[in-house]
Amino acid sequence: MFLKNCWYALAWSHEVQGAGLLARKVIGQPLVAYRTEGGEAAVLIDRCSHRFAPLSLGRREGDTLRCMYHGLVFDTQGACVLEPGRKRPSPNMAIRSYPVVERYKLIWVWMGEPSLADPDLVPDCHWQDDPAWRSIPAYIHYKADYRLIMDNLLDFSHLSFVHENTLGGSLAIAETAPLIEQIDKTVRITRWYRNEPDLAPYLKGVAEIQGPIDRWNIYEWHMPGNVLNMDSGSAPAGTGAPEGHRVPEALQFHATQIVTPEDGKNSHFFWSYGHNFNLDDAVLTDRLAGRILEGFEEDKVMIEAQQLVIDQAPDDARMGYILVDAGLARGRRLLERLLAEEQQGLAVPAEH
Amino acid sequence: MFLKNCWYALAWSHEVQGAGLLARKVIGQPLVAYRTEGGEAAVLIDRCSHRFAPLSLGRREGDTLRCMYHGLVFDTQGACVLEPGRKRPSPNMAIRSYPVVERYKLIWVWMGEPSLADPDLVPDCHWQDDPAWRSIPAYIHYKADYRLIMDNLLDFSHLSFVHENTLGGSLAIAETAPLIEQIDKTVRITRWYRNEPDLAPYLKGVAEIQGPIDRWNIYEWHMPGNVLNMDSGSAPAGTGAPEGHRVPEALQFHATQIVTPEDGKNSHFFWSYGHNFNLDDAVLTDRLAGRILEGFEEDKVMIEAQQLVIDQAPDDARMGYILVDAGLARGRRLLERLLAEEQQGLAVPAEH
Amino acid sequence: MFLKNCWYALAWSHEVQGAGLLARKVIGQPLVAYRTEGGEAAVLIDRCSHRFAPLSLGRREGDTLRCMYHGLVFDTQGACVLEPGRKRPSPNMAIRSYPVVERYKLIWVWMGEPSLADPDLVPDCHWQDDPAWRSIPAYIHYKADYRLIMDNLLDFSHLSFVHENTLGGSLAIAETAPLIEQIDKTVRITRWYRNEPDLAPYLKGVAEIQGPIDRWNIYEWHMPGNVLNMDSGSAPAGTGAPEGHRVPEALQFHATQIVTPEDGKNSHFFWSYGHNFNLDDAVLTDRLAGRILEGFEEDKVMIEAQQLVIDQAPDDARMGYILVDAGLARGRRLLERLLAEEQQGLAVPAEH
Repeated sequence: MFLKNCWYALAWSHEVQGAGLLARKVIGQPLVAYRTEGGEAAVLIDRCSHRFAPLSLGRREGDTLRCMYHGLVFDTQGACVLEPGRKRPSPNMAIRSYPVVERYKLIWVWMGEPSLADPDLVPDCHWQDDPAWRSIPAYIHYKADYRLIMDNLLDFSHLSFVHENTLGGSLAIAETAPLIEQIDKTVRITRWYRNEPDLAPYLKGVAEIQGPIDRWNIYEWHMPGNVLNMDSGSAPAGTGAPEGHRVPEALQFHATQIVTPEDGKNSHFFWSYGHNFNLDDAVLTDRLAGRILEGFEEDKVMIEAQQLVIDQAPDDARMGYILVDAGLARGRRLLERLLAEEQQGLAVPAEH
Repeated sequence: MFLKNCWYALAWSHEVQGAGLLARKVIGQPLVAYRTEGGEAAVLIDRCSHRFAPLSLGRREGDTLRCMYHGLVFDTQGACVLEPGRKRPSPNMAIRSYPVVERYKLIWVWMGEPSLADPDLVPDCHWQDDPAWRSIPAYIHYKADYRLIMDNLLDFSHLSFVHENTLGGSLAIAETAPLIEQIDKTVRITRWYRNEPDLAPYLKGVAEIQGPIDRWNIYEWHMPGNVLNMDSGSAPAGTGAPEGHRVPEALQFHATQIVTPEDGKNSHFFWSYGHNFNLDDAVLTDRLAGRILEGFEEDKVMIEAQQLVIDQAPDDARMGYILVDAGLARGRRLLERLLAEEQQGLAVPAEH
Repeated sequence: MFLKNCWYALAWSHEVQGAGLLARKVIGQPLVAYRTEGGEAAVLIDRCSHRFAPLSLGRREGDTLRCMYHGLVFDTQGACVLEPGRKRPSPNMAIRSYPVVERYKLIWVWMGEPSLADPDLVPDCHWQDDPAWRSIPAYIHYKADYRLIMDNLLDFSHLSFVHENTLGGSLAIAETAPLIEQIDKTVRITRWYRNEPDLAPYLKGVAEIQGPIDRWNIYEWHMPGNVLNMDSGSAPAGTGAPEGHRVPEALQFHATQIVTPEDGKNSHFFWSYGHNFNLDDAVLTDRLAGRILEGFEEDKVMIEAQQLVIDQAPDDARMGYILVDAGLARGRRLLERLLAEEQQGLAVPAEH
C-alpha cells in the first residue's frame, strides 16, 4: 500500500539529460522520464498503448517521444500525435502522463489524482541548491520495502550499533530518549547528546573540534513523499548549542534523505549531506559524502537482510515493540492514517 | 495454450550428432533427442519413469537410451527394454515417445495425438537444403511468449523503427499497406516498396545495385508449427519485378523463420537466410548471416522487453489495435480458431 | 514435512569458532549458532524479536549475543537480558533457543519439543573422533529435497551407473539383491559382491589388493536425523570376509553421511569417509576424501537435476517402483510412519 496523492522524488535532475530517457518504477508503475528540447521534464507511463513495448526503448523527437517498435509518437501529455500508416492518430491511443515538478535538483512526480498535484506541496529541500550549503546528490537502490527504511530513519538508536564505527560512535545515542513531536503530516525528532568525549567516527579526518562536544540530530520526516530533512552537528560542549547558540567552531550539516517506493519490495533512496563550512573545499565535500555512504551501506546491509527474514517469517510471527520505538511507531501510525484517509477519499478537498 | 497436433521444429539436424543427447523443452514438455546407430532421430520424454531422473543425463547404447541413475534402458518407442536386477522389465515402465521427422536440416517433433502425425504435414522449407540456395542454419533463444514473435513477424511496419539501421532503412515500409491474404491455415503477406532510393542498410557492403530500386517482402506464415517462409529482394526500379519479371541484377533471398514454443514465457527461434547468387562466396554467406543476426538481435531486445512490460501490466490493461495491425490481428484470430478447434476435437479427422 | 523431535546435524564443530556466528537454516527455520566464551555451543532463532533483524549480523558479547540493529542482547537460553534505553528488558522480548549437543565433531540441534531432547538420542557417529579411524569432515550443499538424497543412499544400485568410473565400477552392484532389514527406526542394508575382478575405480592409486576381491557395503540408515553409518571394504576373495573374518590385507572404511533438511527444496549434507589403515599417511586421507568427493559430486548433479524434473512434472505424473527400490521403499514407508506418529503425538512418551 502506497500513498498516491503526493510528490515522489523520481530522479536527480542530472539523471535525465539531453535526449536521454530514464526508465524507473514508482509504487509499482513503470515510468519513463525525458526532457523536451526546451529542457522541461516530462513523465509518461513506460508502456506504449499499442503493443506494450517500453517507451524507454524509444527515441525523443523534438518535444515528443516515439515508440521505436511500431513508430507511434506521444507528446508530453501522453496524447498520440502520430500513428504510422494513418493520417490522423486514433484518439484512444493516448497514454497516461504524470504531473511533474523539477525542484531542488530533483524531478518530482505525482502518482495520484492529477488535479490535486499542487507544486506547493513539494517538500522543502532547498538546502540542496542553496549556495550556503554544499553537497553531492547521491542514489542508493534498496531491495526492501520503503517502510523498513522509514523505520530505520525514525529510530536513530541504531546509530550506536549499526554505525558504531561510522555515523554513531557513542552508546549515548541509543540511551538518550529523543523528543518526538507530530506536526500535521510530519514527525519531528530532536536528539541531543551533551558533553560527549569525541566527534562521531565518520568526522575523523574530515573536521575537528578539540575537547568534549555537544552533538545533535534534529530532523523532520514528512510522510507524503517520505522526505527527511535534518539539521545535525557538533559544537564544543557548553557553548550553548542546545540553547540555540551555535558558535563559529560548530560543525553544522544538513542532510536530505528521500525514500521513493519502487514496488512493495524495492525502494529508491535519494540523499545529500551538506556542509556550510569550507564551501570551496571540494575534497572535504567528497570525503564527507564517502564517509556517509559508508554508513548508509551499513543500513542497506541490515535492512535488506531484515527484509529477507521478514519474507521467510511465518505469518503468525509478530515484531515486538520496545521503548525506543516511539518515533517509529508514531510514523507507522501516521502512515496508516494517511493511507486510510486516501482510500476513503478524505484527502481529496471537498470542492473536487 | 499451444497447438499440439502439428510438427514443431525441435532442433537443427547438426545439433544432435553421434551419441550426443539434446535436452530441449517444447510447449512445456521436457524432451530428449538422440540418434540411433543408424543415425535415425528419436525423441523421448526427458524423464525416466522410475525416479524422474532426466534421461538427457543418460547414455546412448546402440539404438537405446539408458538412464544413468539406476540403469533402466528404453528403446526409440519408449519401451523399457532392460531393468537391472530383473530378468524382464515391467511393461508399465514405458515412457512417452514422440513422432519424429527429419527434413530440411531440421528435426521435427509431433506433440499431439501420434496417429495424426502425417509426415506430409511438415511445412515446406526445402530452400534450406536446395542447392540453388545457400544459407547458414541459426538459432536464437527468446525469453518471450511465441505469440509476441508471431506478432512481430506478421507486421513488418516495425522494420522502419526497430531495424531503422539494419533490415529496414525506409519509412516507406511502415507507411505502405501490405496485401494480406489467408489461405486455409496460412497468412500470406505481400509488401512492395517501389522506387526506393537505396538498398536496405544490411545489404551495404554485401551486395550492390546502382540507382533506385523496387523492394519486396512476400511471405507466408504457416500457423501449425509457426513457420515463416519469405521471398524477398531488391531489383533495379522499373525492371518489372512487381509484375513478376526478375532481372539477373536483382538480389533475391529466401528466409525461413520458425518459432517453437518452449513454454508460455520462452521460445526457440530457428532461422536461415538464403541467397541464390554468388553461391560459392562463403564470405558473402557468412556476412549476410551476420547482418541478419544483428537485425534479429534488435527484435529480441524489443520483444523480451515487451514481455517484461506485459508481465507487470495490471490485468485490466488492454493493448490497442491500430491500422497496421491487420496482419497481426489476422494471425491471432487464426490461432485462436485453430486452438478452439483442437480443443473441441474438430481438427481430428472423423475416421480417427 | 519434516521430523522435528530428533537431533539434526547443524554444523561441523570447526564451522563455529571463537566469536564467529554461523547462520544456517534447518527444516525451514533460520538459526544462528555461536559459542560462549567457555566454548559451549548455543543455537538461537536467527531473528531478533524486535524488528526481525538477523542475529547472525550481530555480535557475541561474553556469553551473550547482541543484535547489532538496535542493540538488544540475548543469552544462550534466548532471554533478552539487555534492552537499550530501558533499565530492565521486557520479558516478552525473549526469543526461541534450541537444545544443543556437541558430539562426534558435530553440533546437533533439536528442532522439536525441548523436553524430549535427550542427548542419548544423538546417533552414534563415534568413528569420526575415534583414534582408530582417520577422516576429513566435509560438507556439500544440495538444491534438493532431503528425501531424494535418502532415496539415493537407500539404493546402491545407482553405483553401477552414476558412479561407474568412481565409487562403483561393476554391474554386479546393480544386479545383486541386498539384504534389507528394519530395526525400529533404522533400515539396515547388507550388500556383498563376491569374487569381483578388481577394486572400485576410486581406490585405484589409493590402495591395492592383488587378484580378485570380495567387496561389501553394510550400512544403517537411522531415520531420525537422517544419519547413515557404513562399514565397507574389499578383501582378497575367499579369505572369509563374508563370514566375518577380515584379513590384515583387507581395506576397511567407515563412512558417515548425514542429511539435514534446510527447507523443502534444499539440504545440508555432512560426510566423512574414514580409513583404519596407514593412519599417519595424510596424503592417503586427503586423496581418499578427494576421490569420494568426486563420486558425491556425481550424485549431486543427478539429484539436483532430478529435483528440477520433479518440480516441472505435471501433478498426475507418478514415479514407478521397480525391484531394486526395496530399500528406498522401506525407508519412505518408515519416514511416513514416523511423520504420522509425530503429528499424532505418539512419539511423545505418555509421561510428558
